[in-house]
Amino acid sequence: MPAPAPSELAFIRFVSVENMMKLVHSIGVETVLKDLARYIEDDFRRWEKFDKTPRVASHSAEGVIELMPTSDGEDYGFKYVNGHPKNTKEGLQTVTAFGLLARVDTGYPELLTEMTLLTALRTAATSAMVASHLAPKGARVMAMIGNGAQSEFQALAMRAICGIDTLRLYDIDRAATEKAVGNLKGLGFDLVPCATPEEAIEGAQIITTCTADKQYATILTDNMVGAGQHINAIGGDCPGKTELHKDILTRSDVFVEYPPQTRIEGEIQQMPEDFSVTEMWQVITGAAPGRVNDRQITLFDGVGFAIEDFSALRYLRDRLKDHPFYQELDIIADPDDPRDLFGMLERSKQH
Amino acid sequence: MPAPAPSELAFIRFVSVENMMKLVHSIGVETVLKDLARYIEDDFRRWEKFDKTPRVASHSAEGVIELMPTSDGEDYGFKYVNGHPKNTKEGLQTVTAFGLLARVDTGYPELLTEMTLLTALRTAATSAMVASHLAPKGARVMAMIGNGAQSEFQALAMRAICGIDTLRLYDIDRAATEKAVGNLKGLGFDLVPCATPEEAIEGAQIITTCTADKQYATILTDNMVGAGQHINAIGGDCPGKTELHKDILTRSDVFVEYPPQTRIEGEIQQMPEDFSVTEMWQVITGAAPGRVNDRQITLFDGVGFAIEDFSALRYLRDRLKDHPFYQELDIIADPDDPRDLFGMLERSKQH
Repeated sequence: MPAPAPSELAFIRFVSVENMMKLVHSIGVETVLKDLARYIEDDFRRWEKFDKTPRVASHSAEGVIELMPTSDGEDYGFKYVNGHPKNTKEGLQTVTAFGLLARVDTGYPELLTEMTLLTALRTAATSAMVASHLAPKGARVMAMIGNGAQSEFQALAMRAICGIDTLRLYDIDRAATEKAVGNLKGLGFDLVPCATPEEAIEGAQIITTCTADKQYATILTDNMVGAGQHINAIGGDCPGKTELHKDILTRSDVFVEYPPQTRIEGEIQQMPEDFSVTEMWQVITGAAPGRVNDRQITLFDGVGFAIEDFSALRYLRDRLKDHPFYQELDIIADPDDPRDLFGMLERSKQH
Repeated sequence: MPAPAPSELAFIRFVSVENMMKLVHSIGVETVLKDLARYIEDDFRRWEKFDKTPRVASHSAEGVIELMPTSDGEDYGFKYVNGHPKNTKEGLQTVTAFGLLARVDTGYPELLTEMTLLTALRTAATSAMVASHLAPKGARVMAMIGNGAQSEFQALAMRAICGIDTLRLYDIDRAATEKAVGNLKGLGFDLVPCATPEEAIEGAQIITTCTADKQYATILTDNMVGAGQHINAIGGDCPGKTELHKDILTRSDVFVEYPPQTRIEGEIQQMPEDFSVTEMWQVITGAAPGRVNDRQITLFDGVGFAIEDFSALRYLRDRLKDHPFYQELDIIADPDDPRDLFGMLERSKQH
């Protein structure tokens, strides 16, 4: 009897870290960021179509492991992501992730991918897409507070999508700033390493805060923030972890992805339950105002939402058509007769 | 500059369908079932240590996609599983699954595996482990109602763990019974294909119901069930899907895995919220009685719980030491300096 070769249905596409890097270089990182921002904006525009649920978190003393599922009725996606701030000290990533896209009509998985890199890209694309709606017109200077793994992606996305050309960088660890400057030099930015957060925000139209400690921290205090600025606060992203003094929140118009999740994880976890926020998808559809004047402080309390990962998975699937950087994985048992799983197992014994 | 080879941390082990089949044959399917039953029983015994949550389901008109996470504080596991009853008509599996084990202390994934086969094995092992506590002593005859993909696994597990040697098989589709008989003949069972469910349950000490329609069905009516029998009802496993007439439930002592999930998905979804059930882990630890006399009807309302998948993942990890049927997958981005994700991406460009 011939070996029972798995049918095509038994395979899903898998994008490894190596293939993801090849794909990004093949397309160009700034093009990827711009494309991702467009996919994310498109999905925000059809926000009401999605199944939404706060992420499913498993907390431990050391960190958190989360599953972030969503579906638009045609495709189903989820991401596995951990957050372990102490990992860095052991030479490990704070955040690693992978994700999956499946068909709703059959439930069959289609695409499995590394998402550590893809998450860094989609997070930056989301920040920049939001800033394109909220930041003051003609913004060119960004303060980048926290110069870790996310910082260069933020810088490139803010340039590609919002026209930022000057970066004022600060990190509590000087070596992180040196790393970021080293990676970004030669890419055409004006780079200004700063000794304090106060120095970093001088003249900045956009302030990005992206620090990693799992604790209530005050990276920005009220007196540091001036009229007309846009704050892109993405480091406050789990319970017990914030970056901004609450007085800033009361002075700003706060924009969020999905309020039930942001109230648990974002900067606004410091505020009462009924603290007023605007959902970003409503700004994009025109249902709610974004920036209304040039004195207003806008604040994006970004925690990362499943729909952004879904957009990134959709984008990847579409790009794989022209950039086939994937392997095939035999992860679905697919006997000829679907009721004959045991027969498939038994027949495989003979080979 | 040398190519930045991914470090060992960048890899996780992946068990494909093909490797799972090799592993099962290398160990022997009945040994696997017995070992799995022991792992599952061990985890039921330490039930209180686990993070438990009802599965996270995404329902559609065609079926459901579910994520089933759990953790014992050291390891974290989850399973992706779909349930699409109409798939069979299109030549697809009703249920496909894959799963992952990760370390809680770092959040790093360790092991990714197909779980369509592994779920079939753990479901059968769970049924038999439960029956070893609840079925009448000396049971040798099982009625197997529903002869689909799960049936042969149930048969083998019930023999390996409970001593069943006679199977009375019934399916609404005669071809399914023929398939099961074809697969099981030569494996040492007394096989009795039956024309009706009534005929199938004659003289059976254990009745297994395992049918697949997503609808309220009545596979067993009250007059069919006699004193002293054990019912292993595993086909009622999602909202709107049951197999037993509710009168059977009122006459039986009902045992479940995790009540918050079973009340939504199991046979007892037909009963009031406060319908009395016994948690199986308490029977195993001795905290609650199991079978107390030989007239009692015991009923396992099995829907499948995340801890059983966790046990199966643990088992697989342990067996891979001696049976290295796996590939390595480059799914975790692991730069030398964890803050230098962008640098890793940039350096990969040159190769």
